[in-house]
Amino acid sequence: MSKSVEEVHPRKTFGWAARDTSGVLSPFKFSRRATGDEDVTFKVHYCGVCHSDLHCVKNEWGISTYPLLPGHEMAGIVTEVGSKVMKFKVGDRVGVGCLVGACHTCDNCKNDLENYCPKGIQTYNSIDFDGSMTYGGYSDIMVANECYIIRMPDNMPLDAGAPLLCAGITVYSPLKYYGLCSPGMHLGVIGLGGLGHVAVKFGKAFGMKVTVISSSPGKKQEAVERLGADAFLVSCDQAQMEAATGTMDGIIDTVSAEHSLLPLIGLVKTNGKIVCVGAPEKPPQLPIFPLLMGRKMVGGSLIGGMKETQDMIDFAAKHNITADIEVIPMDYINTAMERLVKADVKYRFVIDIANTLTPA
Amino acid sequence: MSKSVEEVHPRKTFGWAARDTSGVLSPFKFSRRATGDEDVTFKVHYCGVCHSDLHCVKNEWGISTYPLLPGHEMAGIVTEVGSKVMKFKVGDRVGVGCLVGACHTCDNCKNDLENYCPKGIQTYNSIDFDGSMTYGGYSDIMVANECYIIRMPDNMPLDAGAPLLCAGITVYSPLKYYGLCSPGMHLGVIGLGGLGHVAVKFGKAFGMKVTVISSSPGKKQEAVERLGADAFLVSCDQAQMEAATGTMDGIIDTVSAEHSLLPLIGLVKTNGKIVCVGAPEKPPQLPIFPLLMGRKMVGGSLIGGMKETQDMIDFAAKHNITADIEVIPMDYINTAMERLVKADVKYRFVIDIANTLTPA
Repeated sequence: MSKSVEEVHPRKTFGWAARDTSGVLSPFKFSRRATGDEDVTFKVHYCGVCHSDLHCVKNEWGISTYPLLPGHEMAGIVTEVGSKVMKFKVGDRVGVGCLVGACHTCDNCKNDLENYCPKGIQTYNSIDFDGSMTYGGYSDIMVANECYIIRMPDNMPLDAGAPLLCAGITVYSPLKYYGLCSPGMHLGVIGLGGLGHVAVKFGKAFGMKVTVISSSPGKKQEAVERLGADAFLVSCDQAQMEAATGTMDGIIDTVSAEHSLLPLIGLVKTNGKIVCVGAPEKPPQLPIFPLLMGRKMVGGSLIGGMKETQDMIDFAAKHNITADIEVIPMDYINTAMERLVKADVKYRFVIDIANTLTPA
Repeated sequence: MSKSVEEVHPRKTFGWAARDTSGVLSPFKFSRRATGDEDVTFKVHYCGVCHSDLHCVKNEWGISTYPLLPGHEMAGIVTEVGSKVMKFKVGDRVGVGCLVGACHTCDNCKNDLENYCPKGIQTYNSIDFDGSMTYGGYSDIMVANECYIIRMPDNMPLDAGAPLLCAGITVYSPLKYYGLCSPGMHLGVIGLGGLGHVAVKFGKAFGMKVTVISSSPGKKQEAVERLGADAFLVSCDQAQMEAATGTMDGIIDTVSAEHSLLPLIGLVKTNGKIVCVGAPEKPPQLPIFPLLMGRKMVGGSLIGGMKETQDMIDFAAKHNITADIEVIPMDYINTAMERLVKADVKYRFVIDIANTLTPA
């Protein structure tokens, strides 16, 4: 006889979820599983608001199941651990990013690339091993297998550190994989949002020269003075763009809006790399001839594996890298989502779950 | 007082050139420079007919200067060497590929990548250091700086070896650079023409499993039986393509005709690479999401540097790799060009210059 939901998921919990494609979030009661042998349960203190959350609550990718409870940049304090948990204990500062499961048998998993496992389970809007939907971090309590728990270093704040679990790893992983992480290299960062502003910080920490490329001349001051970029290029200024032709080793492209790849290909040197981490809805044109002429490439990357995510947060802690955030109360989330549409945030909203999420 | 053309280029020579965008080739008298201190002069015995030659004689890339004397896959026997030439002597078997000059001071040149030197001089349709136009291998005699002379190994036939100097290096170099050259890897080759058929041979010599991907089911037998491919995929057969999803480490895409990248991206594994060496006139769409989902990339490559070209021909000789050719007389060239438009050749026309090119 199969168990009832109450037996499998006995832990009463609550959060804010979207009920339909309006994307409007409102209080939502649900349940999570009891702490399993290999599970870590923690009280969520903070959760970042990723642009993906916005896409998902409105079903803009056509893959949403409602109720949809978003959030994959959460950090908090461990309240319970399973009997077989080795790495964590009650009171530890921890986080969960985009992933809560994978097959652990495929080639990707064997190579610490759970993020590319075909059977990977996302932190929300995914079907968990027990057949239930996964619910994210806009909630009071989280339970996950310890494989997917990240230890937050002592000096890493839980609020400004939480966004690193998605935004941070999403830029760190490709910078490492594509070899854009050596001192003296010249990195371009296009798009100065949640991902881009962290990419600037990692680029500088790797010892690179970092140039921010943006269509908004007004972002120059913050890029250079606040984030530490070495230079700023206005992408619609032909003279500036031409002067920078062939000067960069690579560009990390964080822009999801439609934009042309050709000017970016022109900016990189021979063997230059354009790395896309944002996904425009409409595929851009790929001019092949300029790729051939300089042995250039355009590649993609998606978050990172669990081992690398831990490496990233440890590296960030060592170099005092955090996200620039605006902390908001839970009931501000719908306004925050509206502002996110207009990119009106520097650079990440983080929900103060512990202090502002209350049972409806 | 500047020297006259006769003084600078005293060597009377002849070949076949196109005079206008009709692309029709006919006998052409011209002159080449005397053998300079660092020059090697050789009698051209054979010259391959590259698809680029066809584009250039008809000015399809909009960069042609007439008269245009094509040919950048030539091989022959040294007749004279300059006083400072160290590596070659009269009687040596040699060849020249796509390049006859570069700046030797830029980063690319310093890294043996003369092929990406911004001041590189092409074997034909380029302006040489002395201000004259360069003329290619559809001619009786060639003069070039010894840096651009390739030694043809003893067991490398001059006729079937000549096409390797462009077609061979164009596929060899990216297979090496993009790391698609290790035993046990699975390589896809799309396009079974001058480049593709050689890519199959190099792939097998590297110890890889090679699958030819083609829209023409009729090419299966020759791909497998004649060229040694391990498998054959009909690109318009949905079932075959789906069965092969995520099985390849990389694909070398030699097709210049318009085609979609999406099915190719689907065929490669996580970290898979699509390497383009053909340049479609109209840029294809690049679906970014599938790139992200598997950390895949699309890159380009253009011939190879001089050191690597020598490595390539030495490797080819060691593994008995040559191009499959149809040897033609000089006066067949216009018919050959018409057949080339229809891809009616297996797989490279090679002009028997020594025996069939006669002064008009």
